[in-house]
Amino acid sequence: MSIITLLSDFGLKDPYVAEMKAVILSICPEAQIVDVSHEIEKFNIRMGAFVLASATPYFPSGTIHVAVVDPGVGTKRPPLLVETKRCFYVGPDNGLLILSAQREEICHVYNITNPTYVLPRVSRTFHGRDIFAPAAAHLARGCPPSELGPEVHDYVLPKFAKPRAKTGRLFGEVLHIDDFGNIVSNFSTEDLEKMGIREGSLVHTQFRGKTLTLKLCSAYGEVPAKTPLAIIGSGDFLEFSVNQGSASKAFNVKAGDSVSIWPLPHHT
Amino acid sequence: MSIITLLSDFGLKDPYVAEMKAVILSICPEAQIVDVSHEIEKFNIRMGAFVLASATPYFPSGTIHVAVVDPGVGTKRPPLLVETKRCFYVGPDNGLLILSAQREEICHVYNITNPTYVLPRVSRTFHGRDIFAPAAAHLARGCPPSELGPEVHDYVLPKFAKPRAKTGRLFGEVLHIDDFGNIVSNFSTEDLEKMGIREGSLVHTQFRGKTLTLKLCSAYGEVPAKTPLAIIGSGDFLEFSVNQGSASKAFNVKAGDSVSIWPLPHHT
Amino acid sequence: MSIITLLSDFGLKDPYVAEMKAVILSICPEAQIVDVSHEIEKFNIRMGAFVLASATPYFPSGTIHVAVVDPGVGTKRPPLLVETKRCFYVGPDNGLLILSAQREEICHVYNITNPTYVLPRVSRTFHGRDIFAPAAAHLARGCPPSELGPEVHDYVLPKFAKPRAKTGRLFGEVLHIDDFGNIVSNFSTEDLEKMGIREGSLVHTQFRGKTLTLKLCSAYGEVPAKTPLAIIGSGDFLEFSVNQGSASKAFNVKAGDSVSIWPLPHHT
Repeated sequence: MSIITLLSDFGLKDPYVAEMKAVILSICPEAQIVDVSHEIEKFNIRMGAFVLASATPYFPSGTIHVAVVDPGVGTKRPPLLVETKRCFYVGPDNGLLILSAQREEICHVYNITNPTYVLPRVSRTFHGRDIFAPAAAHLARGCPPSELGPEVHDYVLPKFAKPRAKTGRLFGEVLHIDDFGNIVSNFSTEDLEKMGIREGSLVHTQFRGKTLTLKLCSAYGEVPAKTPLAIIGSGDFLEFSVNQGSASKAFNVKAGDSVSIWPLPHHT
Repeated sequence: MSIITLLSDFGLKDPYVAEMKAVILSICPEAQIVDVSHEIEKFNIRMGAFVLASATPYFPSGTIHVAVVDPGVGTKRPPLLVETKRCFYVGPDNGLLILSAQREEICHVYNITNPTYVLPRVSRTFHGRDIFAPAAAHLARGCPPSELGPEVHDYVLPKFAKPRAKTGRLFGEVLHIDDFGNIVSNFSTEDLEKMGIREGSLVHTQFRGKTLTLKLCSAYGEVPAKTPLAIIGSGDFLEFSVNQGSASKAFNVKAGDSVSIWPLPHHT
Repeated sequence: MSIITLLSDFGLKDPYVAEMKAVILSICPEAQIVDVSHEIEKFNIRMGAFVLASATPYFPSGTIHVAVVDPGVGTKRPPLLVETKRCFYVGPDNGLLILSAQREEICHVYNITNPTYVLPRVSRTFHGRDIFAPAAAHLARGCPPSELGPEVHDYVLPKFAKPRAKTGRLFGEVLHIDDFGNIVSNFSTEDLEKMGIREGSLVHTQFRGKTLTLKLCSAYGEVPAKTPLAIIGSGDFLEFSVNQGSASKAFNVKAGDSVSIWPLPHHT
């Protein structure tokens, strides 16, 4: 039994997600379909890449991940199949798949061109249903990846900022605001270790021109309700949170905003 | 293994959808349940019928579609089972099922009256759980359709406007606004062919008192970002879109609005 | 085949629900996962308990219910496994599971402490993925409940108000506002019978300082569209509704508000 996951910016109101599932089950009735998220912000490839890369490590090896955030649908951007050491990724060539795939080591990348493995009639507006879903379903049935089209070595890489160190500070950005209002930064646990910041330390942070001194907690409940804190989130990035509240609302922070941290008292 | 699809206006916050799935799996544990949409606008039978009819062609034959947009629940409107050449439809007799069923050729329509195939205690507020879900699950287990109740020949037809031609223009209406803000009209590809409008043509359109001249594109990316265009949507209806934007917001258009198109320069 | 249900306040935008499903399917690939709701109001244990208790009676016996509304995650509140005469419940020890479990008669309650049955690395922010999902999946594979940790006899009980009778009135509160705007009270059918209120009766009700006289209907359609009514909801509690409208909007009522009813004319 193969697991096929779906991620998109389609929302759940329209028939689009169901149409993809219908195509998959028509080709591979025993596929187990799992939704990752269909509430990616419209056309926000970066958010899609982040959410996909957060979820994929927990799926068993052999899982086929289909992801569709695809502002270039119908133009020349090719449909891709990426084979890694653990899994498969199917979706548009715009960087969406690659953040997650790179972490698993990419083995081969193919353009999906073989008309045998897509729908007989391919629309110019909905490759999720017409190309990606049937290609994934054929893979789930055992079709060899190289059957889907020619191997390629040139594909779009995700443009994810890495934090930069400067005069004792680390400058990064907000990757994601989750549904609780947690502010997810791009500072990894490794980055924190290098700066000597560990659980229990105070960490200084600046965003939106405001400087805060927060405790790096190991649980939200270490501070009183409605109090801000820093914490290593479940995806291993530093997050800024408010216990039982929304940090993004409290500090008016959006995805893409700049943020910096530094470990020791620092006079601005 | 049978596929049972679910469509409703219940939303995903409340326990209602889960209760339907629980009833289905209690009767037919091997059913494969697929959600079509539970975000149909409350009591909007027309939107439900449109979303259902868009998704059903992609499901394999033998699929059982359960749809519940049911303002008349508990009154005398009967519960229906519709058997077509391809599939089964289960839901209220208010037109919701018939748009999709008609496209597959209706073979038989039954009232669901046999108490053996519904829950022992039928509430007056939730036939989705108490009648439609168990009837569908029994069908999935192989119960013959005619067992569920008497065949009927009189049932509610959907009142979907067809476009009307007048003095060289085609007058229609907005069927649906999708989650991207695409404006889905009721002009079919056939309608366009008759008017000599084809991909690459300019098409004149009027809605909300405003006249626009749009290119009939074959992909959103044929025009610059934030630019309006016309396109054949994935459901084979003419749509008005804004590349990487929301046409419904840009033009303040709602489902049910009037819209007209004409092919050649026309002085109003 | 085991059914595992999931309920949470995570929403569907983030990767959190998918991560729980991924963990479950990695341990128990044949589990059938059903979402109850992920749209519980953030940190609202009472709403979670109500929605869970509404859905669980419809699932087959042996179902494993995982519920996560968990403001105390990472603090000392223990992870629980509750075994009832019908089912299993897995989640935090904060009352969330107990309302539903009590109705099925609780047999044993365990703290989940055995590291063999949780993820190798348990975060302090996401026990849904790291403890509850793997524990449920091991149960689904046949692991005996007592293997997960020591039996306990002390656990948090839900603080759900029962209606109080006083001078011929019954005083209660609003348990839930559903997505249709129906106002679900905590008056049971039994409470109504004791007061001699039955279908067809008029019932007097007071909320937000306003007194209304409503017919206790057996179907929404018994009153004209946009007209208020009282009705026994599908969960067997008295609800205040507006036919084809939203009662919560019409009367500006929220969950937690006080409400009273009385059967006969009463001068205030």
